Amino acid sequence: MASAVVANGKKKLEQRGPKIGVISGPTNPMVTPLLTDLYQFTMAYAYWKAGKHNERAVFDLYFRKNPFGGEYTIFAGLEECIKLIAHYKLTEDEIAFIRKSLPPSCEDAFYNYLRGIDCSDVEIFSVPEGSVVFPKVPLMRIEGSIAVVQLLETALVNLINYASLVTTNAARHRFVAGKSKLLLEFGLRRAQGPDGGISASKYCYMGGFDATSNVAAGKLFGIPLRGTHSHAFVSSFMSLDEITERSLKHLDSPKVCKDFVCVVKTWLTKLKRSRLLGGIFSETNQSELAAFALYGLAFPGSFLALVDTYDVMRSGVPNFCAVALALNDLGYRAVGIRLDSGDLAYQSCEARKFFQTIEKEFGVPGFGKMNITASNDLNEETLDALKKQGHEVDSFGIGTHLVTCYAQPALGVVFKLVEINNQPRIKLSEDVTKVSIPCKKRCFRLYGKEGYPLVDIMTGENEPPPKVGERILCRHPFSESKRAYVVPQRVEELLKCFWPGSSEKIREDLPPLKDIRERCIEQLEQMRPDHMRRLNPTPYKVSVSAKLYDFIHFLWLNEAPVGELQ
Amino acid sequence: MASAVVANGKKKLEQRGPKIGVISGPTNPMVTPLLTDLYQFTMAYAYWKAGKHNERAVFDLYFRKNPFGGEYTIFAGLEECIKLIAHYKLTEDEIAFIRKSLPPSCEDAFYNYLRGIDCSDVEIFSVPEGSVVFPKVPLMRIEGSIAVVQLLETALVNLINYASLVTTNAARHRFVAGKSKLLLEFGLRRAQGPDGGISASKYCYMGGFDATSNVAAGKLFGIPLRGTHSHAFVSSFMSLDEITERSLKHLDSPKVCKDFVCVVKTWLTKLKRSRLLGGIFSETNQSELAAFALYGLAFPGSFLALVDTYDVMRSGVPNFCAVALALNDLGYRAVGIRLDSGDLAYQSCEARKFFQTIEKEFGVPGFGKMNITASNDLNEETLDALKKQGHEVDSFGIGTHLVTCYAQPALGVVFKLVEINNQPRIKLSEDVTKVSIPCKKRCFRLYGKEGYPLVDIMTGENEPPPKVGERILCRHPFSESKRAYVVPQRVEELLKCFWPGSSEKIREDLPPLKDIRERCIEQLEQMRPDHMRRLNPTPYKVSVSAKLYDFIHFLWLNEAPVGELQ
Repeated sequence: MASAVVANGKKKLEQRGPKIGVISGPTNPMVTPLLTDLYQFTMAYAYWKAGKHNERAVFDLYFRKNPFGGEYTIFAGLEECIKLIAHYKLTEDEIAFIRKSLPPSCEDAFYNYLRGIDCSDVEIFSVPEGSVVFPKVPLMRIEGSIAVVQLLETALVNLINYASLVTTNAARHRFVAGKSKLLLEFGLRRAQGPDGGISASKYCYMGGFDATSNVAAGKLFGIPLRGTHSHAFVSSFMSLDEITERSLKHLDSPKVCKDFVCVVKTWLTKLKRSRLLGGIFSETNQSELAAFALYGLAFPGSFLALVDTYDVMRSGVPNFCAVALALNDLGYRAVGIRLDSGDLAYQSCEARKFFQTIEKEFGVPGFGKMNITASNDLNEETLDALKKQGHEVDSFGIGTHLVTCYAQPALGVVFKLVEINNQPRIKLSEDVTKVSIPCKKRCFRLYGKEGYPLVDIMTGENEPPPKVGERILCRHPFSESKRAYVVPQRVEELLKCFWPGSSEKIREDLPPLKDIRERCIEQLEQMRPDHMRRLNPTPYKVSVSAKLYDFIHFLWLNEAPVGELQ
Repeated sequence: MASAVVANGKKKLEQRGPKIGVISGPTNPMVTPLLTDLYQFTMAYAYWKAGKHNERAVFDLYFRKNPFGGEYTIFAGLEECIKLIAHYKLTEDEIAFIRKSLPPSCEDAFYNYLRGIDCSDVEIFSVPEGSVVFPKVPLMRIEGSIAVVQLLETALVNLINYASLVTTNAARHRFVAGKSKLLLEFGLRRAQGPDGGISASKYCYMGGFDATSNVAAGKLFGIPLRGTHSHAFVSSFMSLDEITERSLKHLDSPKVCKDFVCVVKTWLTKLKRSRLLGGIFSETNQSELAAFALYGLAFPGSFLALVDTYDVMRSGVPNFCAVALALNDLGYRAVGIRLDSGDLAYQSCEARKFFQTIEKEFGVPGFGKMNITASNDLNEETLDALKKQGHEVDSFGIGTHLVTCYAQPALGVVFKLVEINNQPRIKLSEDVTKVSIPCKKRCFRLYGKEGYPLVDIMTGENEPPPKVGERILCRHPFSESKRAYVVPQRVEELLKCFWPGSSEKIREDLPPLKDIRERCIEQLEQMRPDHMRRLNPTPYKVSVSAKLYDFIHFLWLNEAPVGELQ
């Protein structure tokens, strides 16, 4: 049946052109129909027992508060949700396990029902992946038979939560670092488990990073890979004698340099004797020099060295320069250095001066522009502090804080019933921010004259949509006095059909990761700057139509018990 | 080759008895040799190019600081590491990808080398999973050819980092909650991705939780499952009329109650008219009553209701009691209620009084002891605050803060070279806490008279081990003045062989999860209480032998450059 769904999907899609193929399964094979809470199965049984399981229900997936003290969030994780949906089918083995997990009194026929379910009747409308989104506005609207949609709840929330959180985190790091810097995600070893690492790489790229160190993610998603060497590489060497194969071919000629190590040594002596540089260092560490020379021999065209194993300015940088200059003699251009400890602002400036002095003194064009990469527990705050101090770093390698979302490791995505059998439902709470917005809704983003988005508005499904040039009243969903008239210059419908279920609606493409990344970058650039700043950003406005406002409050009064003060 | 390794392993193991079978692959199929940083492959190439790739190296895996402001950590993730090791083998497809990712100048023969590597020559000594561990002491000692061991680094660190962090977090939650409470892990939807959720369930169970809501984890690891129903279930009902099938068989007789709903209604009226209870509520919410009645019909033997959708004391608890009393009439015993919002301490006390009043007034034995489960953003602090206020909660459902390790979402596990070709290596740093402890080491835990562990001591591999009853000097590895004599009453060697490589050493079993969980609970109970308390715990002492101390400082002076103040 699941394959039938996919095959149907395929057929429909083929009619739309050759661009879209069959939807493949979830990236992580552990994403199965069992990736859910037990109560989804107990509820499914109760619904089934009451003959209520096929009642048509609409759920909204949304969050209540932007993360990281900011005023925006990037929506991510949709593709993985659709991949789960497209292949949703319980295996016999899984059904046997569910049977074991429910009370023995549960009727056999229920398991036959489970055997038959798939998502061919589920309809998913969603904001496109990589969009800038805001609290309370549905990111996804999931409609289908209530038992099936609830079975999906946990996995969908799981797949959206971390994906959106880490994409937002990446976008925030990009914002602070500025457009011109190269941002590298180095988080795999500190991530929350293997696919915490793999999905972090995917979503950090989506949020504006340029590359990852994670080979598995590079292979799965086509993300550019970066990496140099570790401290262990440096300290694994004892002396230059360890290098036995010392020859290196010139880049653009058949000439071969027979003893590259000798050229390196000569350069080191020249640097030491230099009037301008000689005072900075005396004897450099020989293990390190051996490691760099060897790394240069192995990667003459892309030599990049980690220079802080012993001492950055008294050993690492001079050793690096000796190798880089030797490579330069053979026509190769070294890439640069990586700093992984200490005062990154100061060290990068000192290293830059060293490079520039070499460019001048030895007449090596471009040597002053050598790339400087910095890593070591970087986060938004340290990037910001570095910027304020002034630095010469070209690329940042960011790990722990980025991938674990250290500043706020969870996003509160929720999944709420808003309608069943065409009856709107509301979830009340003593905490107003937790009251849900009822009804199957449409959502629009209204743009102003200057091209910035002004406000998002939710309306009932059957209300006339906002129109360009026509004044519309936008109301805060819960606060009576907050409302404003808007005359939109552009109206964008936010929720689009990504899984039509049994309807004839046309399904949106699942774009490639690169396109999603571009969308994300564009959307961020389109926002009014005061929403985006790190300190005291202005909240973006989220509203409901006048009609929906009235309906919410009618339903609220209807459902809430009247208190008695005693 | 990988299968040969496993087959060999199996053969060896079969000689040791029938208990141990073949080691299966990693739980998450995404754990492959590509789950590593690119620089491990570039370094492998450089080592290979220098003919250095087969040099025998020893690496220590350890962390520098206990998480969550505590003074202990639980070591976890070992089994997954061994599963990776046992099956370590690059596929052709993976090799092709690595070739694409490295510069085209890299020699073909390197890929043949990659084709041949596995972990048959790697030796892993480790602390057993579920042990209480401390900073600086190696958790794992990995020995093998340098290129292969470095290729493993990222995955091993990834697999240990989050596993140990979340197990420790679970143990800390258990410590605050106390032994008598039932602890349920409810974190899947908020976890950092699908296997963030699945592994959280595994490791929270290991750290002392009793059950999970996560069905996939229940199936994979045999963890007990728990779950009730959600708010959506309650608000999906409109009225009692929706329940058409109303009959329910008595538990211990063939008698059938034809209209269970009618019995429920009768009980609700009785409660309302009760002199002691009637003042508390008037009209209860009918959607909720319908949902509870139906859930009782579906699960008469395990009825547990979420009572805060509308109002706990004015609707949820009375509705629950009406259904529970109706079930009681038919011989069934309800399980209890779940509270998911508001003042959990107050509400649980009020609900308890309500239950106790029913027990007395209507003579229903045991009704006062009805289980009360509480959830809603719980963490160590709120559990502690609840305990201080006084509450009547029997079980806690904990999600977000537990599984994302909200209080500290990353542990700083590192992987450092300590010896190559029998030459000890040290990694220096301007920050003393980051200096590594050189040499292939043995590690011992020394116990005092009262049975508590007193100190961990690291020694060189060939030093005589500490002996029971013999005085030994334990020195702080970096602080000259901190040292103490200890006469151990018991000596426990910490690192045991979990992967013998090509040696003839006997491999330790990988115990089942339940045994690891028991070990963990026992180890925690064995610790001196002042190390374990939440506020200002006493640091546990970690030391080196006098001989190792001298050697560290000899090597340090040897490697560190002498500064020049200018």
